[in-house]
Amino acid sequence: MSGDATDAQAILERARVLVAPAIAEALQGLNPELRVPAQYHCDGQGKGTRPALAILSTEVAGAPSEVGLAGAVAIELIHDFSLIHDDIIDDDAERRHRPTVWAKYGVGTGVITGDALHALAYEALLCDPTPCRVRAAHELTKAVSAMIAGQSMDMAFEHRSAITVEQCLAMEKGKTGALLSFASSVGAILADAPEAVIAGLAEFGMHLGVAFQAVDDLLGIWGDPAKTGKPVSSDLRERKQSVPVVFVLNQNSSEAAELAQIYARQPAEARQLADAAAANVVPLSDEAVQRVRTLIEQGGGREGTQVLAHKHFELAVAALNCVAQTNSVHTGAIQQMQCLAEFIVGRDF
Amino acid sequence: MSGDATDAQAILERARVLVAPAIAEALQGLNPELRVPAQYHCDGQGKGTRPALAILSTEVAGAPSEVGLAGAVAIELIHDFSLIHDDIIDDDAERRHRPTVWAKYGVGTGVITGDALHALAYEALLCDPTPCRVRAAHELTKAVSAMIAGQSMDMAFEHRSAITVEQCLAMEKGKTGALLSFASSVGAILADAPEAVIAGLAEFGMHLGVAFQAVDDLLGIWGDPAKTGKPVSSDLRERKQSVPVVFVLNQNSSEAAELAQIYARQPAEARQLADAAAANVVPLSDEAVQRVRTLIEQGGGREGTQVLAHKHFELAVAALNCVAQTNSVHTGAIQQMQCLAEFIVGRDF
Repeated sequence: MSGDATDAQAILERARVLVAPAIAEALQGLNPELRVPAQYHCDGQGKGTRPALAILSTEVAGAPSEVGLAGAVAIELIHDFSLIHDDIIDDDAERRHRPTVWAKYGVGTGVITGDALHALAYEALLCDPTPCRVRAAHELTKAVSAMIAGQSMDMAFEHRSAITVEQCLAMEKGKTGALLSFASSVGAILADAPEAVIAGLAEFGMHLGVAFQAVDDLLGIWGDPAKTGKPVSSDLRERKQSVPVVFVLNQNSSEAAELAQIYARQPAEARQLADAAAANVVPLSDEAVQRVRTLIEQGGGREGTQVLAHKHFELAVAALNCVAQTNSVHTGAIQQMQCLAEFIVGRDF
Repeated sequence: MSGDATDAQAILERARVLVAPAIAEALQGLNPELRVPAQYHCDGQGKGTRPALAILSTEVAGAPSEVGLAGAVAIELIHDFSLIHDDIIDDDAERRHRPTVWAKYGVGTGVITGDALHALAYEALLCDPTPCRVRAAHELTKAVSAMIAGQSMDMAFEHRSAITVEQCLAMEKGKTGALLSFASSVGAILADAPEAVIAGLAEFGMHLGVAFQAVDDLLGIWGDPAKTGKPVSSDLRERKQSVPVVFVLNQNSSEAAELAQIYARQPAEARQLADAAAANVVPLSDEAVQRVRTLIEQGGGREGTQVLAHKHFELAVAALNCVAQTNSVHTGAIQQMQCLAEFIVGRDF
């Protein structure tokens, strides 16, 4: 795996060198009140997997990487916008060991900075409205709408019981899959690739997104805080209905019954709050978190989620192999895409 | 004026009958978690001036009103998104005598519902990407970016002194003018009207926006709470640097000195808060608000703002008259547009 990781780092670095100046230029167009918080967020940025997928998907289609640049910029701006707003929604004050935008600049600035990046993403594509870019912009609106729908379902799950694994997966397909699907195919759209190539890459990205989200759910429970940048078991503390939890709750087992009981237990004062706005979830205690962790492991939630992640990763690779059969594609880029996929999903699972 | 108002009501009603079903259909596409708060917001909706301008601008260009429908839907969705987010930013719990979306459903739901409408607006145009619709979508991204820039400047003004009337107007051009400019010209864009018609209508809308915002600033100080739906003098209570205030502060007068002193005065505990996020503006007392109101009136801020509103209204009408000189335009629709403009700006000034 270490060889693969090094390859993946090189792929990410190559994309970063190409995309970072274009992102910086896009942010330069903002007025200072928006540019400062936007740059603050982007400086603390992650690995840049989405723009790297966008660049690779251009190369898969046999086009120069520059052809996919606007798509890479757009997907990164959308990703940034969604993180800034998600941190407000989830009340997360820290990301990558730094204060989040709202925690540093206030909720209002967080809201409006996210809005600015959201609009800027469409502008990055529509400023030169060739038919391919217009199609990419339209696909982007659909992916963003799906992402928002997934996020809103995730929020609703907090106040609901009896969620099925299928509902949970549908939520994660929207929340994470839609954008990764767009990232993995936008370069091919911009390169005017055959429909089969575009569709195959989009399918690859969708399954990759579900696999990634399943791994992320595992990290939210068993991940090392030093690596995830989040408090240990933060998802359980917040009674999050992630895949491992929902997997157990849908079994007919003593672990399921006890887990349901702990998740449902709320202090009396919280139950009395009728207003949905005020009824924030009361965090679980340290003892409860530890017990829940054991119950999920014993109830098969960890293994079940690992199986799911593997399954969707295999489906992603299968979709990529189908694309590789197409005459016109660049197989070296396909291999790099698979390497990147392994890196994305391979984290500690 | 009452005859004009009746005409304007008829114009608005005609547009509403056309646009409301299309908006309802767009919202139907949202999942229930987003649809419920979005519909709640839209049910408490205002006069629908923006979609009416969009429909009229289609008719000015001699096209059937249906041609402008997607533009009317897009501008209304953007307006709704901006109101939902502005209420979070401004911490406003009430709009039109009802709880705002965040106050009813929580801040997280407010953020994501606004995001959903933002994305939906572009989708309304790009779902059928004819060259005219693509151009409209691109103009919309620019108008939204300008609106967001204006809003962020407005927020920054709260923490700054020494703002000039010009800076204040530049902010209001962005915050209100950009969207009204888009609303007033999008129908002509969709109707593929001559460039001079599109540009003239955009200029009309920009000046109308500045005039409207100046009147809105007056209403924020002297408006009747029963009509504005906001607490009396709410802008002063929040030490807002609106045009009437900035007008006085830029004079060399005793009123300016006293006004600056009252606006700058903060309780000791507020001064100690170093973090911008925590340093919310402490509201002025009832006595201070009353004194500030008198100072603005005596310092010429009320009259100066009225003059400004009149000037930009006249510039809007002049732009419209230029459009009326073009061969191809429909003068009946031009007259209706002027009638609507009078109604928009004419409120109590």
